Amino acid sequence: MKLALNKVTLCAAAVLFSSAAFAEKVVNNSITLAEVKAAQQAWGEALINISNTHEQKGAAAAKALAKQVLDAAYGYNMGAVLFKPTLANGEQTFRTTYDGALSYFVAGDKNFAQDGGFALKGWKKYEYENAGVYLNGDLALTMGHVHVTDKAGNTTTVDKTWGFKKDAEGKLRIVLHHSSLPYAAN
Amino acid sequence: MKLALNKVTLCAAAVLFSSAAFAEKVVNNSITLAEVKAAQQAWGEALINISNTHEQKGAAAAKALAKQVLDAAYGYNMGAVLFKPTLANGEQTFRTTYDGALSYFVAGDKNFAQDGGFALKGWKKYEYENAGVYLNGDLALTMGHVHVTDKAGNTTTVDKTWGFKKDAEGKLRIVLHHSSLPYAAN
Amino acid sequence: MKLALNKVTLCAAAVLFSSAAFAEKVVNNSITLAEVKAAQQAWGEALINISNTHEQKGAAAAKALAKQVLDAAYGYNMGAVLFKPTLANGEQTFRTTYDGALSYFVAGDKNFAQDGGFALKGWKKYEYENAGVYLNGDLALTMGHVHVTDKAGNTTTVDKTWGFKKDAEGKLRIVLHHSSLPYAAN
Amino acid sequence: MKLALNKVTLCAAAVLFSSAAFAEKVVNNSITLAEVKAAQQAWGEALINISNTHEQKGAAAAKALAKQVLDAAYGYNMGAVLFKPTLANGEQTFRTTYDGALSYFVAGDKNFAQDGGFALKGWKKYEYENAGVYLNGDLALTMGHVHVTDKAGNTTTVDKTWGFKKDAEGKLRIVLHHSSLPYAAN
Repeated sequence: MKLALNKVTLCAAAVLFSSAAFAEKVVNNSITLAEVKAAQQAWGEALINISNTHEQKGAAAAKALAKQVLDAAYGYNMGAVLFKPTLANGEQTFRTTYDGALSYFVAGDKNFAQDGGFALKGWKKYEYENAGVYLNGDLALTMGHVHVTDKAGNTTTVDKTWGFKKDAEGKLRIVLHHSSLPYAAN
Repeated sequence: MKLALNKVTLCAAAVLFSSAAFAEKVVNNSITLAEVKAAQQAWGEALINISNTHEQKGAAAAKALAKQVLDAAYGYNMGAVLFKPTLANGEQTFRTTYDGALSYFVAGDKNFAQDGGFALKGWKKYEYENAGVYLNGDLALTMGHVHVTDKAGNTTTVDKTWGFKKDAEGKLRIVLHHSSLPYAAN
Repeated sequence: MKLALNKVTLCAAAVLFSSAAFAEKVVNNSITLAEVKAAQQAWGEALINISNTHEQKGAAAAKALAKQVLDAAYGYNMGAVLFKPTLANGEQTFRTTYDGALSYFVAGDKNFAQDGGFALKGWKKYEYENAGVYLNGDLALTMGHVHVTDKAGNTTTVDKTWGFKKDAEGKLRIVLHHSSLPYAAN
Repeated sequence: MKLALNKVTLCAAAVLFSSAAFAEKVVNNSITLAEVKAAQQAWGEALINISNTHEQKGAAAAKALAKQVLDAAYGYNMGAVLFKPTLANGEQTFRTTYDGALSYFVAGDKNFAQDGGFALKGWKKYEYENAGVYLNGDLALTMGHVHVTDKAGNTTTVDKTWGFKKDAEGKLRIVLHHSSLPYAAN
């Protein structure tokens, strides 16, 4: 397709109309790759923060912080979250409620008696690596490995999938979280 | 929220795990502002191109080109397009079909006898200015003015709304197009 | 972290789960056709309501109601709204701000001196007819005619495009509104 | 361009239109709950179908069928798929490519030497139960259990997350698939 329009005529037009140009307003409801990575990084930092708070200030302070993290980073106030934590199983495999998620991270809920408190395990290091990122408007999916290292230097690697939803304030919230230990062939 | 994690521990973690890093694959189905503006610019260039083709090569060539433009720039193959052209009215106000759109641009369809062929009016210059752009995943909306100038130097300004959908190949297609002459208070 | 999983535990788990189906939780962020039509109907009813309030209770009451309608039905608190009202033109063609929209409906703002107050024109009857509806996740587009009839029995028809966005509470808000008088060939 | 519009033509138009309602065209790009469940059911039926074909017609026929299933049910032609199969680990944990996915289901690819062919295990029965479904426009997420039973009557249960994308033809394709064995506390 030949294009007869040229830069000169375009510039002329610009001169002609530029005196009434609008201030272009842009609303963007989509998630960028940078936003996804910031949210992934923040998740690990929050995990370590809860661990450190637990060590330094005790269980109550850790629980209070975990609530703040859940409120800010997960979408439980936007409806159910599809959450399969690493170390949950049986009838409590899926934590679609706020209470179920909170118990997984800091334990202490008699309704989830098997929970040991994943965020209380003394995590000191965190890293994620993505095999793939899928950006689809206000929803972004990631899949890859997460490595967490405790104070004894032991590293646990998990296979992790996240789904992030951009909320009304433009912040990313986790609405999907599937974490599992690597398959161990024997 | 105090953040105990520091750059040093993060870097240490990176060293530890970097030997098994994946090549991150990214799929992005969302529309960027730059893609929207490129599509807006392309629409005007195509309009001028059809006008020039009409002058230089006649009606048949202009119609053939208009079909190419419609195929590439509009989403008629993705379902109905919500199209209200500037100079259409009555029962033929809305051109939700391919034939209705083609007739509007190049005329010659007895089912749309009032059409004069908007793209055949000798357009030489084109400019758009956005009052607002709304990016929402694979759909983007724009609203603003479009100015087109013919070979006699007469400029027509219209109020124009576009909706662009990103298709499976990553190309933007118009699925909404509302164009109207400015309101003339008397 | 040692992984103790083996085939035996797997089978045991299967027996356990098969008798304990989950209560499926469903979150739906997409807009349905019924929701779109309800929002279209509500827009017209609100318009008539403002007109009636103006007649019965005066300008202040009409303005107060118009604010409620704008707050509930439009998305100005979610960023700019792409709004081209029927009877606006020139530099004030596009009302991307709350104040600009309010003035269009009830006038009385010196910054928009030409506004006569579209909602104050004694509207008594409202009808919409869609040429097309485009449902795209949490955003829905409509295009068609709107007919409004005043107390003298005069009907005005406009070509109207709406874009509705589903907000965090599941309510539809107008983020795009292009309204224009029908083209009158001479 | 002169604008001849006046009140008289408006009223005339209104009379004309009121007797000629449009045939409303509706395009719907969003996924429904019913579509999600049909896709979940189809996945299991395809798995059993491949198993049966393998038994009855051999490896080549099973592989040919698996290719058809991958082509139809997964989105590899739409970019990378985020796929973590149940029994994959190490550097081959994530199968973001078509070949990696095909090998997981029917084995026989030297680049994925550890694959045993998950679809070749004689599956006879399939059941899924959702803990949650998240509908977000043209993308839908599910999380829950999947139970598959082989010809010996042994049932394997996995924790499974799927992400389905509606494609240009309106068909659902898997773009996310995280499957893991239940955590076994010891």
